[in-house]
Amino acid sequence: MSFPCLDAVESRTKEIVSRSATSGPEPSYTTGVHKEFTSKDPLLLDYGGILKEFTIAYETWGKMSVGKSNVILLHTGLSASSHAKSNEDNPRLGWWEKFIGPGLALDTDRFHVICTNVLGGCYGSTGPASIDPADGKRYATRFPILTMSDMVRAQFRLLDALGVGKLMASVGASMGGMQSLAAGVLYPDRIGRIVSISGCVRSHPYSIALRHAQRQVLMADTNWNRGFYYGGVPPHLGMKLARQIATVTYRSGPEWEQRFGRQRADPSRPPALCPDFLIETYLDHAGEKFCLEYDANSLLYVSKAMDLFDLGVTNQDSIRKSRQKNKHKLLKTYSSDSEHGGGESEVCSLSLPTVPYTEQQQPSKGSSQTESGGGDAVASDDLVLGLFPMRNIPTLVLGVESDILFPAWQQREIADTLRKAGNTNVKHVELGQDVSLFGHDSFLLDVKNIGGSVKSFLEE
Amino acid sequence: MSFPCLDAVESRTKEIVSRSATSGPEPSYTTGVHKEFTSKDPLLLDYGGILKEFTIAYETWGKMSVGKSNVILLHTGLSASSHAKSNEDNPRLGWWEKFIGPGLALDTDRFHVICTNVLGGCYGSTGPASIDPADGKRYATRFPILTMSDMVRAQFRLLDALGVGKLMASVGASMGGMQSLAAGVLYPDRIGRIVSISGCVRSHPYSIALRHAQRQVLMADTNWNRGFYYGGVPPHLGMKLARQIATVTYRSGPEWEQRFGRQRADPSRPPALCPDFLIETYLDHAGEKFCLEYDANSLLYVSKAMDLFDLGVTNQDSIRKSRQKNKHKLLKTYSSDSEHGGGESEVCSLSLPTVPYTEQQQPSKGSSQTESGGGDAVASDDLVLGLFPMRNIPTLVLGVESDILFPAWQQREIADTLRKAGNTNVKHVELGQDVSLFGHDSFLLDVKNIGGSVKSFLEE
Repeated sequence: MSFPCLDAVESRTKEIVSRSATSGPEPSYTTGVHKEFTSKDPLLLDYGGILKEFTIAYETWGKMSVGKSNVILLHTGLSASSHAKSNEDNPRLGWWEKFIGPGLALDTDRFHVICTNVLGGCYGSTGPASIDPADGKRYATRFPILTMSDMVRAQFRLLDALGVGKLMASVGASMGGMQSLAAGVLYPDRIGRIVSISGCVRSHPYSIALRHAQRQVLMADTNWNRGFYYGGVPPHLGMKLARQIATVTYRSGPEWEQRFGRQRADPSRPPALCPDFLIETYLDHAGEKFCLEYDANSLLYVSKAMDLFDLGVTNQDSIRKSRQKNKHKLLKTYSSDSEHGGGESEVCSLSLPTVPYTEQQQPSKGSSQTESGGGDAVASDDLVLGLFPMRNIPTLVLGVESDILFPAWQQREIADTLRKAGNTNVKHVELGQDVSLFGHDSFLLDVKNIGGSVKSFLEE
Repeated sequence: MSFPCLDAVESRTKEIVSRSATSGPEPSYTTGVHKEFTSKDPLLLDYGGILKEFTIAYETWGKMSVGKSNVILLHTGLSASSHAKSNEDNPRLGWWEKFIGPGLALDTDRFHVICTNVLGGCYGSTGPASIDPADGKRYATRFPILTMSDMVRAQFRLLDALGVGKLMASVGASMGGMQSLAAGVLYPDRIGRIVSISGCVRSHPYSIALRHAQRQVLMADTNWNRGFYYGGVPPHLGMKLARQIATVTYRSGPEWEQRFGRQRADPSRPPALCPDFLIETYLDHAGEKFCLEYDANSLLYVSKAMDLFDLGVTNQDSIRKSRQKNKHKLLKTYSSDSEHGGGESEVCSLSLPTVPYTEQQQPSKGSSQTESGGGDAVASDDLVLGLFPMRNIPTLVLGVESDILFPAWQQREIADTLRKAGNTNVKHVELGQDVSLFGHDSFLLDVKNIGGSVKSFLEE
């Protein structure tokens, strides 16, 4: 039996090895020209890490008004760059190309849109592939654990530098939805409106499981080398596999039913263990496209930050305490070899429990289960208190029924929680299966319904 | 940062190497003592392969009646053995322990239950780990591609040998549901009743995608060695990763929400990239338990056979033609080195299309889309004609609302198709989320609702 899918992986490894032998180390990841802001003030991270300095890559569209009152901060999904839209400096199409521009969802005739590459990313912002100023070497997995709030704090340093006091709106989808809400909690007085599309108030175990699978597959690639692959062959196979799993979570069964059904790539050939059905070649291709486009360590850190996302008051309090405890680190001088990025030798050395998890026969049932299947009464209070700071910010919550990764019930959870927190200006829109079958990816594709809702909310 | 999850994998590899150095090659996979039936007549497979001879492992419970009219054939899920229930020869608990026995769902006071390990499996039946009689070596990936119908034909050879003319019932869940329906189409006159639990009439692209991800991850393990790992280190890491992905598809979000929520394995430790949240240690443990319990090649072949499952008349006709064309192979004498297992050198050498799949902007929409989001009008006729042979067999179709892998709409598809085919004796039961949150695994866990429905259907 032949295995063209494995041959392809082996060829790519050989190609990378021979390329780096002739042309030096691999190029940095980039989606083209962007602006950069570097903060020389250290940043204390939620889990105790410190970045002595950091850079945020960003791009802008539309003119900033004289009073700087028309600024929209656009947050990205996991793997996106600041390049949301083509511009003069970089004509390449952006990831929200059709949503930004004159008369579009984010109307550049009215608004000044700023999009950043997240802290921890690889498209110009400081992340695991960056040089640790402490020793001049790449951080790799010495990079500190990040949270959504850390990413938002870094963005607001940029806004401070630009002299933007209050945002007209904070807008984001997927992980960007998380950040948009996190910004509302951290800086309620600096945000006029919030848009969260296919986001959540906290990561639920099913989403964690789906990301866990991707991380495990990536970390299993021996080329990953526990994060120290820079200068060598990157874990392109692990990245390809992780991206295929991710792609399954980004779309929906009914869409694939319509689009691929049971079509085989080549019906004249007998079945094979390598990609065979059209859906398989589609996934394979999605993996191929991505496997060298994004830094593996960035994927791990940003994916982990998504898991850690929880706007419940208990988590916020615990982080607040820990930040208080670690505040002294901002004053300390760091030795270059003992505390790369801020004390990671103590962080992240979790050992597995010696007694493995034992299966329960039945899940607990009772009045604590909400109709949506998520959260219980106690957790709900926890979230209501957590979102209390956002009670005065008009918010649009957009969800998609066919979304598996950030299911519709999690969108209802955001809207319900905000309303319970006293927010009387919450608009909740759910796109049914009759409107969009694109699942989680609807936010990238459905210009009419997603774009339309965003536009009318921002301009009302 | 430390990586205990990677350390564990490396330790296991070392342990396997040192163990095999001292105790010889790895033991065969087994779940204990079972009966065996060997057919010396060659078996022609749907895709042109030939097994010159084959063995089927099986176990039985309850007494066969004098007229042999009380026999239930129980089909297994993907990775199960014939050991559905403990017995004198093998007291180990079976995979349907609480569903089989005096007074239980399959009442052994009334029925004689036969369960087989599938053809292609590794628990005693002929599969990729078996010796190819042509050359005395393990088949590995020289094993021919299998289908559900091939597995069912092998089972009926066993029934022939046991002198069982007509089954009282054919019962199965998950892949067993596929087989149960396939048996109804292949041998309608030999089956009294059919039970399909969380099965389908054909595999849909989303399920194929989920299995594709598992196969790709497994095949990426260098220890898999394109299937030729026998005598060496088996691809335990690939198996562990594949099982973790599978586990995500076997359960449901709401159940995990209740059971794990956002609990961390050890809240006193800082976050880590290795398993950290309780849901992650649960998945890790599920992978650990399975990674040396099942043959990797069996997983690939049986998983692929599930993808190929399609009871539509178009597929049945195409297979019928191909079988007709290959029938001469049953008469031929085979040279031992050119046609291992029946012409595999020609089979399975699919090359990928040179032009990769291009993203469409919108899926096609229109009247062809059914309410369920699956199948179109043409396909539906295709299935109705395909299930026409089953029109006189009373059938119970059981589904679970929280099932992601074999969603409830696919259960409705089975029932609707059977009814359209003229079957007036179709019972369709759907367990709502208020009854079971166990997703696809409900068939293993919900004795009351699944077992209860099966029992009353079989005894009505």
